[in-house]
Amino acid sequence: MTYSFRDDYSEGCHPEILAALSDANLVQQDPYGDDEFSAAARELICARLGQTSAVHFVASGTMANLLIISSVLKPFEAVISVQGGHIAEHEAGAIERAGHKVIIAPGEHGKLRPEDIRNAVAENTMPPHMARPKLVYISNATETGLAYRKSELKALRVACDTLGLWLMMDGARLGAAMVSKASDLTWPDLAKLTDIFWIGGTKAGALLGEAIVFNKGELAEDFAFHIKQRGAMISKGRVLGLQFKTLFEKDLFDSGALHAHAQAKILSDAMIAAGYKLSCPTETNQLFPILPLALVEKLERDFAFHRWGAVGTDHMEIRLVTSWATDPDQVARFVSALG
Amino acid sequence: MTYSFRDDYSEGCHPEILAALSDANLVQQDPYGDDEFSAAARELICARLGQTSAVHFVASGTMANLLIISSVLKPFEAVISVQGGHIAEHEAGAIERAGHKVIIAPGEHGKLRPEDIRNAVAENTMPPHMARPKLVYISNATETGLAYRKSELKALRVACDTLGLWLMMDGARLGAAMVSKASDLTWPDLAKLTDIFWIGGTKAGALLGEAIVFNKGELAEDFAFHIKQRGAMISKGRVLGLQFKTLFEKDLFDSGALHAHAQAKILSDAMIAAGYKLSCPTETNQLFPILPLALVEKLERDFAFHRWGAVGTDHMEIRLVTSWATDPDQVARFVSALG
Amino acid sequence: MTYSFRDDYSEGCHPEILAALSDANLVQQDPYGDDEFSAAARELICARLGQTSAVHFVASGTMANLLIISSVLKPFEAVISVQGGHIAEHEAGAIERAGHKVIIAPGEHGKLRPEDIRNAVAENTMPPHMARPKLVYISNATETGLAYRKSELKALRVACDTLGLWLMMDGARLGAAMVSKASDLTWPDLAKLTDIFWIGGTKAGALLGEAIVFNKGELAEDFAFHIKQRGAMISKGRVLGLQFKTLFEKDLFDSGALHAHAQAKILSDAMIAAGYKLSCPTETNQLFPILPLALVEKLERDFAFHRWGAVGTDHMEIRLVTSWATDPDQVARFVSALG
Amino acid sequence: MTYSFRDDYSEGCHPEILAALSDANLVQQDPYGDDEFSAAARELICARLGQTSAVHFVASGTMANLLIISSVLKPFEAVISVQGGHIAEHEAGAIERAGHKVIIAPGEHGKLRPEDIRNAVAENTMPPHMARPKLVYISNATETGLAYRKSELKALRVACDTLGLWLMMDGARLGAAMVSKASDLTWPDLAKLTDIFWIGGTKAGALLGEAIVFNKGELAEDFAFHIKQRGAMISKGRVLGLQFKTLFEKDLFDSGALHAHAQAKILSDAMIAAGYKLSCPTETNQLFPILPLALVEKLERDFAFHRWGAVGTDHMEIRLVTSWATDPDQVARFVSALG
Repeated sequence: MTYSFRDDYSEGCHPEILAALSDANLVQQDPYGDDEFSAAARELICARLGQTSAVHFVASGTMANLLIISSVLKPFEAVISVQGGHIAEHEAGAIERAGHKVIIAPGEHGKLRPEDIRNAVAENTMPPHMARPKLVYISNATETGLAYRKSELKALRVACDTLGLWLMMDGARLGAAMVSKASDLTWPDLAKLTDIFWIGGTKAGALLGEAIVFNKGELAEDFAFHIKQRGAMISKGRVLGLQFKTLFEKDLFDSGALHAHAQAKILSDAMIAAGYKLSCPTETNQLFPILPLALVEKLERDFAFHRWGAVGTDHMEIRLVTSWATDPDQVARFVSALG
Repeated sequence: MTYSFRDDYSEGCHPEILAALSDANLVQQDPYGDDEFSAAARELICARLGQTSAVHFVASGTMANLLIISSVLKPFEAVISVQGGHIAEHEAGAIERAGHKVIIAPGEHGKLRPEDIRNAVAENTMPPHMARPKLVYISNATETGLAYRKSELKALRVACDTLGLWLMMDGARLGAAMVSKASDLTWPDLAKLTDIFWIGGTKAGALLGEAIVFNKGELAEDFAFHIKQRGAMISKGRVLGLQFKTLFEKDLFDSGALHAHAQAKILSDAMIAAGYKLSCPTETNQLFPILPLALVEKLERDFAFHRWGAVGTDHMEIRLVTSWATDPDQVARFVSALG
Repeated sequence: MTYSFRDDYSEGCHPEILAALSDANLVQQDPYGDDEFSAAARELICARLGQTSAVHFVASGTMANLLIISSVLKPFEAVISVQGGHIAEHEAGAIERAGHKVIIAPGEHGKLRPEDIRNAVAENTMPPHMARPKLVYISNATETGLAYRKSELKALRVACDTLGLWLMMDGARLGAAMVSKASDLTWPDLAKLTDIFWIGGTKAGALLGEAIVFNKGELAEDFAFHIKQRGAMISKGRVLGLQFKTLFEKDLFDSGALHAHAQAKILSDAMIAAGYKLSCPTETNQLFPILPLALVEKLERDFAFHRWGAVGTDHMEIRLVTSWATDPDQVARFVSALG
Repeated sequence: MTYSFRDDYSEGCHPEILAALSDANLVQQDPYGDDEFSAAARELICARLGQTSAVHFVASGTMANLLIISSVLKPFEAVISVQGGHIAEHEAGAIERAGHKVIIAPGEHGKLRPEDIRNAVAENTMPPHMARPKLVYISNATETGLAYRKSELKALRVACDTLGLWLMMDGARLGAAMVSKASDLTWPDLAKLTDIFWIGGTKAGALLGEAIVFNKGELAEDFAFHIKQRGAMISKGRVLGLQFKTLFEKDLFDSGALHAHAQAKILSDAMIAAGYKLSCPTETNQLFPILPLALVEKLERDFAFHRWGAVGTDHMEIRLVTSWATDPDQVARFVSALG
């Protein structure tokens, strides 16, 4: 049977989450996020950050992005994203449908740099004929699987402060980024260096759910209205809260990411050992090896993964993704198939 | 401890759903609704309807409403709702934010009548100065807990056909409506008499999830784009599909609703026996008794419920809601407290 | 030939405006409202108000309404309008397309009362499930041709202040309202009692153009972005500015309205003298007589006007509108035709 | 006194337009575009095209663009524009506020090429995760002052047909493009090769006004609703219609453009004669010479124009624009100042 390395959302959830849902199942709770489990999850998140931030739970990453962006921006304000950013390319124009221009900056290997921000602002200053850049969007880990360093994030923060911009971080794969050995970034850094970030629950082993964290309280004002109006308010908010409570209480969030990394490292090391190149260093749970087309076709008989793009006429960059659920036996099987 | 009759979403889900989630947990599935469980759930729903309709799953009722309405209407088209309809009063202006006018019709006891539709259209025909009515929105059960009869729905259908309107049904409490002894409406009737309806999973015992059913295939064209663009696409779509599969495969959908009705009937009968009036007959899982204020205050010491509105100076209409999870012992305790 | 009393925009403009356009035609000016004529027009308007307000010119009344409403409201905030208000019934859902709910209040004869505001707020306070009322919209003159008194406007102001609402006035027919003998309202009152109002140029004898006046400067912040983004920025802004300059410099604004009133009074007096009822007293340039259907049909052979609604089986309420351009000979002809 | 070559909208309008407004001033007309002048203007435009197209008049170019784009596209559909296109850079995010993604293609010297279209589509095909490209936007003349040849437009048409896209042309400076000696494109070609285009009246010598032309009638269906709902319906639609009638009846549209070209050619030839380079050949009424900074500063003492961008450390590209109103004496004065 084919085993999939296509993404980090092919399975259900950490079994402990199912256990927690089961334990709490018939306990009555207030709806719409006012339940005890959501409150406990908020506390656990704030404890990690070392400060009191406003935390809201929603069901999907695109929802998190569109809610954040459309609630903090005025209608004529724009968001800056690196080329290849999720909001720029893979959200079907959700940000634009919410009314906002996405200004694309080149970046480097999928990372945004301070000069990208400065250039984007410089090229968009002719009021009122140009939408006003006001928010910078980054992802951590990036779409290319890289993790921002503390120094990099600090530099983006300085650029934003200088230009009067807010900084938000899409954390669909934040778990993977935060345990990366390549990065020294800490959770209190996230609180200090970003204005808003969100914590991906889905890819970290929840059934569904993302936690939006406003480090500047005034940006969260009236946010519940936006949640409701966008159709994102879940009546049994307990379902989201309880999952985050379980992820952070039991340290599943980190341990799952570490498992994913370990499996990605095995795959990555095997690629290098076999003499294949990677288009990016493997810093989190994604790797992008460039393989002979014949090998790709052979591997596809037993494994599912994305073809990322042709390299020359006879090579192909592919993407492999691991997760909290990746089966080490299948990783070993994949490694053997390489040989 | 206080027991809540405030709503039908205070608990988690049918234990069989948790069991199903557990059984399937590590089986890899394709994302975004392309999983086997969603496919099976679609088949079960279509089997009930006796026809092939297009079925999509989303996480909340407001999302179902805004997605349906904003995908089938052109920007200048309006939706007609009875006064008190969920889209008219309890969705924070979600439909308007999506760009559409909601035309309010008076109705009767929360039910829309054919003459409401005809009047609303007659009062909104001055193109291009008035938004063009194009869609009729009803809820079944209504916000007042009533169930539409087949003859009523047929009459609405005729009015819609005569005027070139589509008819959609909000089924947040469709389970409660379909098992109501007050109504002779069948599932194949739903398919024939509405253009679009949705099946409430959350209130029927799912953790979350609503199934949108397009009976006219052309209305569903490109719907996945709308889902994605509105932030409603769940990467682990399996979570929604598997719950609906379980609800319909095991008949939980009906049996849960029947349990809720039975409990509501006990409460309703007790009210009448004790000499209290109901503002509406009890046809589903909601009842609206009018009680002396002193009794309301006494009941509130042990039970949670909504005060619906003052009646005179010393009476209060309250709302009691039962569900698949309502504890018969608590119902009995409530009945004793009445005496 | 048929003479039209259908509206106050069947002719071009005050000849003095054409003369002014001609005089200034080849004088180069900065675009986008930064011209000297617009500056002069702003000064003339502020002089009338006795205070410095922010003034912007746009081309249509619906544009003025949608720009004001969508710039001062947050996405989840709603506007309260009387039933029959222009934004409620005759703007094709423009406010909703801009994302905002219009809450309809009953009012009396087309006028909004303080209790309408209080009730609308009371019925819309369940955050975040209901859009939050934040702005009150009135028209002066009303759609029924009435002029607000100072005491009425003060009472609305008090209600708004008590409830934390802004008050805006649609002044499509402000000229007609301000010269009405029925009202004691002054221009400085407009500045003090409303947060925003707009001055209808089109119906007052301009080719086109409405002046939006923000009495609270902070509400006008970044307004030019909204103008540009909504497609309302006219490159030759001079065309709007010069017309308002001419209207207010030469007192055409008032004299035109006085002419319209005088003609409406002749028509109104003739109706009363002939024994016909009016559905509203004639306070401005509109009258709403109730005439026998046979007479209506006879009049329609020579005159154009709107049938407003059947009264019983053999009478019809009609609307007659006069303007700065109404020909007194045609008024006399109409009066004779009555006899 | 400073003379401005900054743009083609610094003056009022062709004197013949003022004369026509004056002649028709007191003739009563139906409102909202249903007047005889608008009808006559539509006929004159269709006569030029050699076919019956649907024609609507609006007050500004940004309005024309946003109305066209938001009326023909579904919410999840995107428009392709060349980098530097007006909708991409100078409309304050109007298209995005209307809900649509603008996909930027590189182009060449401001012109879009067939390969730009093919690449943009190829890079945006992952339904439903990417907005679907459906419309191609070009400007003629381009922002760089170039005029599309018939062969170029045909090639774009073929690319659009192959990919199932619509093609629209922003004609803010269509007059300048159509009389350009550099291009062989005819008005019937416009009708055949584009699905929608608009004719700039403002820059061609009207006070304001642009004519939107739908060559495929089905795309214009219900367009009046969009006009009304976007605040673009002018009650005295006669003002727009009469100006276009005058422009085309008296051939002012072409003669004004020819005058502008002649003046631009004098300026352009003088630049070349003086040994300065142009960044683009001068094909219409804009030229982009690269001048020594010292000369630019000297010229700015007597003339207004835009600095377009530094070239090296001591040169500057500037933009000069001529129009129907450009004074030949000032052109001569500018040429002398060069020497």
